[in-house]
Amino acid sequence: MTVELISVGTEILLGNIVNTNAAFLAEQCAGLGLSCYYQTVVGDNAERLEQTIRTALDRSDIVILSGGLGPTQDDLTKETAAKVMGRELVMDEHSKQCIQDYFTRRKIELTDNNWKQAMVPAGAIVIENHNGTAPGIIMEENGKRVILLPGPPNELVPMFKESVYPYLNDIQPGIIYSQTVKICGVGESKAETMVADLIEGQDNPTIAPYAKTGEVHLRVTARAEDEKEAKKLVKPMVKELKNRFGSYIYTTKEDVTLEQAVVDLLLANHLTVATAESCTGGLLAAKLINVPGVSEVFKTGHITYSNKAKRKFLGVKKMTLDKYGAVSEDAAREMAKGTAVVTKADVAVSVTGIAGPDGGTKEKPVGLVYIGCSVCGKVTVKEFCFQGNRSKIRESSVIAALSLMRQCILEYYSKVTFG
Amino acid sequence: MTVELISVGTEILLGNIVNTNAAFLAEQCAGLGLSCYYQTVVGDNAERLEQTIRTALDRSDIVILSGGLGPTQDDLTKETAAKVMGRELVMDEHSKQCIQDYFTRRKIELTDNNWKQAMVPAGAIVIENHNGTAPGIIMEENGKRVILLPGPPNELVPMFKESVYPYLNDIQPGIIYSQTVKICGVGESKAETMVADLIEGQDNPTIAPYAKTGEVHLRVTARAEDEKEAKKLVKPMVKELKNRFGSYIYTTKEDVTLEQAVVDLLLANHLTVATAESCTGGLLAAKLINVPGVSEVFKTGHITYSNKAKRKFLGVKKMTLDKYGAVSEDAAREMAKGTAVVTKADVAVSVTGIAGPDGGTKEKPVGLVYIGCSVCGKVTVKEFCFQGNRSKIRESSVIAALSLMRQCILEYYSKVTFG
Repeated sequence: MTVELISVGTEILLGNIVNTNAAFLAEQCAGLGLSCYYQTVVGDNAERLEQTIRTALDRSDIVILSGGLGPTQDDLTKETAAKVMGRELVMDEHSKQCIQDYFTRRKIELTDNNWKQAMVPAGAIVIENHNGTAPGIIMEENGKRVILLPGPPNELVPMFKESVYPYLNDIQPGIIYSQTVKICGVGESKAETMVADLIEGQDNPTIAPYAKTGEVHLRVTARAEDEKEAKKLVKPMVKELKNRFGSYIYTTKEDVTLEQAVVDLLLANHLTVATAESCTGGLLAAKLINVPGVSEVFKTGHITYSNKAKRKFLGVKKMTLDKYGAVSEDAAREMAKGTAVVTKADVAVSVTGIAGPDGGTKEKPVGLVYIGCSVCGKVTVKEFCFQGNRSKIRESSVIAALSLMRQCILEYYSKVTFG
Repeated sequence: MTVELISVGTEILLGNIVNTNAAFLAEQCAGLGLSCYYQTVVGDNAERLEQTIRTALDRSDIVILSGGLGPTQDDLTKETAAKVMGRELVMDEHSKQCIQDYFTRRKIELTDNNWKQAMVPAGAIVIENHNGTAPGIIMEENGKRVILLPGPPNELVPMFKESVYPYLNDIQPGIIYSQTVKICGVGESKAETMVADLIEGQDNPTIAPYAKTGEVHLRVTARAEDEKEAKKLVKPMVKELKNRFGSYIYTTKEDVTLEQAVVDLLLANHLTVATAESCTGGLLAAKLINVPGVSEVFKTGHITYSNKAKRKFLGVKKMTLDKYGAVSEDAAREMAKGTAVVTKADVAVSVTGIAGPDGGTKEKPVGLVYIGCSVCGKVTVKEFCFQGNRSKIRESSVIAALSLMRQCILEYYSKVTFG
């Protein structure tokens, strides 16, 4: 089955916002095994919107529209889609009640134009919006489907996950089941080479590689009669990937991030952590602290951008800085050691590097980064040479630091070795 | 004149990447005064791509395609666009040389398929790519224009700014001139109310408000015969905005960010800075450290997520934490004071709050954040109540901290007052 996405909104046409909804919906639809050949953005204009919906319905089985469901006269998506599908708008009592409740809870005065949002195309499936006032709508006609979703991502995303994903899964022959194998510490092209033979001959399940900064995600997807059958197809492939990537796999769970995996590892081993950052300037600590519940393990973070701060707060030796420079294996080692001493944390990680755009030399080019990790006194330092601009180099450094922390903790506690 | 954007790439259709190119191009085109009614995403498929280009050319004056200019057989954009415009592909000697040089500089072996990128449609304007191997292409025919740009943002963005923007500006009647007034410390809806009368009656120049997290940007745009005329139209409007927003305007320069403005202010007053962060966990320091040259002013940053760390590293009193809690005006004040003492920085800023999702109570809900700022011993603390999820609350806190730093420094040194 084919799906097509239409995003409605002048703010996207003006470049005022980035269209993250389309990326989210596209990824979800791909995960459902739907083929998407077109995405369109169009403004709040009745004529152009109508033409766009008609074109999409001609060439695709399912058309998902997002945006333009607000209470103002500008919002035309529902009216236009209903017209194309030949439906009248009727008052939906349940939606009306939900809107009333929404305003009452928030103690905001309800104005007459808000009732517009309770009008729905006759015979449509109405989806309750738990995070806003515009209900979602599904219209079915002659094997074609039009789905309307609210524009704000904090309304669209949960509504899609809760209601539209199961709906789309149900209408397809059999079911789709996916599992994602998340890998860090292996480069993107190396990872792709390592699975090239599997991708080459794939049919069911399929493997799709997704490259993130410093990570590779391999999504294994199978289609089958029922979930049990699909899982049976996915399982041996995930096992094969585990054989090939071993300890470099940090999770096979959809919602676990690398920082979450590191925090889980710290929690499981009753370890505390502290950070010392130079070029990343707090990004590593910020990433860890984005994990809810991190307070049990995170002791303190130091941002020692200057040499003075490295000496004063972490006890890095003046001689080391003079002889080898702040961006050196020795400095990274002393930063990690010093952090462990000062904070008494079990795990201490340090980052020092040249993020650019200035400060690079022939011997120490922009992108050169040293990352140190001390686990209960055992210090490991690794050298990296990252590509890209200042923010890309800093982002790569953070992921590499998380990856190194993970490896060092596993090597220390689980006697796992990394190839 | 109308413009239409076509993004070519399976990775966008699969939701593997977010289409930031479209947002960038849309914003630039809007700035040029071009009307954009449609954006389309299509995959590397000759038939669908050809149909999409034909449809776009039928209804728009200028069609900008991005992506699909790579060296592989999958990359079809140039071939397809040339076919639609009735052009042959011919070897461009200058592009060939550039590709040769690119590989020589990087010491990478050049393979035969790379020469495909030096083939250009006959009679096209060829734009040199300073960051990659695919040249940009402009084709003109009967008042219609097709522009091809490489997909990677680090190639597309500079190529557009250097070559395509001036080209598009030249072909339009008169010229467009914009100036952006950037404001912090004033809420979005308040700012919009303060300029509602100006927007209501606008014609030339126009004012477009862009809401960012914690900031509002007002872009004033005029069209005129020449730049001098356009500037003359923009100037009184910018002056009027300066009257209305006063010290809340942190810059009227396009490329100055809030963190840059704060660092500039520190540099101008020969001030050093240090940070102490709890809920933002390093994000504030990371933001400051993203400004090249910050090393002259940034002393050190402390991430004191736990109460213990707040006491040990910043000297926050146990009594304060017991009596008022870590998220309190008193704790923020002592964190700022302590940071100033420990680091001897002239400006010390502290952030403590509840970013959620857990940890909120009725008295201290998720989103409650206290920010303290000490300027040469004078400490100011402000209370904020932010909306949104964990990462939104942290982001809002960072912007509010930068804004407060700016206000405190200005009040101390320039005797400016904020209303």
